[in-house]
Amino acid sequence: MNAKNGNFRMMVNSYGGPEVLTLQEQEPPAPGPGEVLVRLSFAGVNPVDGYRRSGSQGYTPDLPFCPGFEGAGHIEAVGPRCSDQLEAGLNIGDPVYVAWSGTGTYAGWCIADCSQVFPVPRGMELSRAAGLFVNYFTAYRALVFRGSVLPTDRVFIHGGSGGVGMAAIQWCGFLGNEVWATAGSSEGLELLRQQGVEHRFNHGREGYGEEIRSQRPEGFDLILEMRADINLDRDLDLLAPGGRVMIIGSRGETSLVPRKTMGKELDIRGVVLMGNSPDANRSIHRSIEKGCASEDILPVIQQIYPLSEAAQAHREMEEHKALGKRILDCRPV
Amino acid sequence: MNAKNGNFRMMVNSYGGPEVLTLQEQEPPAPGPGEVLVRLSFAGVNPVDGYRRSGSQGYTPDLPFCPGFEGAGHIEAVGPRCSDQLEAGLNIGDPVYVAWSGTGTYAGWCIADCSQVFPVPRGMELSRAAGLFVNYFTAYRALVFRGSVLPTDRVFIHGGSGGVGMAAIQWCGFLGNEVWATAGSSEGLELLRQQGVEHRFNHGREGYGEEIRSQRPEGFDLILEMRADINLDRDLDLLAPGGRVMIIGSRGETSLVPRKTMGKELDIRGVVLMGNSPDANRSIHRSIEKGCASEDILPVIQQIYPLSEAAQAHREMEEHKALGKRILDCRPV
Repeated sequence: MNAKNGNFRMMVNSYGGPEVLTLQEQEPPAPGPGEVLVRLSFAGVNPVDGYRRSGSQGYTPDLPFCPGFEGAGHIEAVGPRCSDQLEAGLNIGDPVYVAWSGTGTYAGWCIADCSQVFPVPRGMELSRAAGLFVNYFTAYRALVFRGSVLPTDRVFIHGGSGGVGMAAIQWCGFLGNEVWATAGSSEGLELLRQQGVEHRFNHGREGYGEEIRSQRPEGFDLILEMRADINLDRDLDLLAPGGRVMIIGSRGETSLVPRKTMGKELDIRGVVLMGNSPDANRSIHRSIEKGCASEDILPVIQQIYPLSEAAQAHREMEEHKALGKRILDCRPV
Repeated sequence: MNAKNGNFRMMVNSYGGPEVLTLQEQEPPAPGPGEVLVRLSFAGVNPVDGYRRSGSQGYTPDLPFCPGFEGAGHIEAVGPRCSDQLEAGLNIGDPVYVAWSGTGTYAGWCIADCSQVFPVPRGMELSRAAGLFVNYFTAYRALVFRGSVLPTDRVFIHGGSGGVGMAAIQWCGFLGNEVWATAGSSEGLELLRQQGVEHRFNHGREGYGEEIRSQRPEGFDLILEMRADINLDRDLDLLAPGGRVMIIGSRGETSLVPRKTMGKELDIRGVVLMGNSPDANRSIHRSIEKGCASEDILPVIQQIYPLSEAAQAHREMEEHKALGKRILDCRPV
């Protein structure tokens, strides 16, 4: 069903279930000032794409829209006035990954700001590079820009087998931080084991918090929290004095004893991917290059679907826990 | 009832109501290494003294004990090995205020670490200086050390007529920050007016949050929160992007939507007075001296009671909202 020329976009014309995703033919425009046109080979699928598709979780993007914030492919055209912002040495035909696109990446092409495309790290497949932006830039922002992590900090990742959790585990390896993590299934725990996490806990099991506390009574300096609505109050018990819990995900209301933040002078800090400035993005890209070279950073792919089966990818994403990145193959058939 | 020689201490021998406070005669010991003996003229009364007396709010000090963390008087004796830590130029007979004492300050004397007595600011009555430590050192810690306040930050004090709130208002005047504040009574609002707070709101009135939001839609950079158990979730709505809410007081559980911290990348930060290091205390004292000289800093006294009527001071503190500092007169009768 993908067109031979790749001039197709997966559109959402009205909010709803995965079935609202509709493939539509569309020629790419010429990139405007400061923009590049990228011919996409792969796109990354993220929970936020599902929220936007369904108009839920506070997301109500203008309709119609093409979902997807990340992808990888080749530069097809460079608009005027890009020389200042485009990464040095990038040219038409070069392989790049896209770190946010206003036109969406569930498509054969996208337009991106020239400050938001980066060269694919040496030796990395395009399919993996398509999954670099959302998870790795979020995890890095949580750890470094918002979490002020020090190499001596003890990090706990509450939800380590999801996309941002896995990226955070790899960043901790790169940054030199010891990391403890949880997952909610045996497959998730196996994924943590494969990522070299020695201290793994099943957050679906009663009493795992006490188990962690007894094994690490001095507490953690930094907690990355994917479900603050479930865990926030108990996270405060797991923190060492001066500790921070970073809120990366949350789906509802929670109950909290605020006094717990006082005696140990704890911080609760919200994190959002879009908080990164262009300079921050560039610095994260540099670290990604170094982390790939040192073999700390490598996106784990769960499954690749043809772009035409994006609805199936959404269905499986919403029905099953993530065990790696779901990727769409956007190349012409 | 105070002894002629002033060698009396108000003791708590068992947890309970104000009536457990019992005056007891006791000679002061000689100060040990690094300690000074202060002959107290006045002591400050604080809510925490009530929590410790009743064994509530998580406070269960070892019995028996003499309450009170702050006071003012004169140095009576200096122990060995004080030269490094004692403020330069301080000598026996000099007027000082006490910034924490292990022996308690509801008494005619106290022993304090020599790094925890500071000269009374020029021109300040001892009775006011007795109320400098708990409120001013806490408010400064919340604003500066934990809140990283900038002169351009817009500050909102949720509970401005209490001890720490009033101190924070005065610090904002000293630091150059515009400050908005609430109180819960007409007397409290009048106190805010006297302190020069232009934008005052009654937090007991329905809809005051919406009123604040409509008058300041851009939000606040820093909120000082005295009752996080009541206000925390709504504070997040009042913050500007990058804003911080400092938890200075809280008395129970609260309901919170953690996702509110994400989009604006907000921080919730706990504050505790005892987080200040000796160096921090010294730097706060320097600022107090400057703030007194510039007439920004001046403790407001609500009432002075004889030490023998400490129980009455506790009763009134626990039955009525604070409108300034309650002070005990510890001088011999």
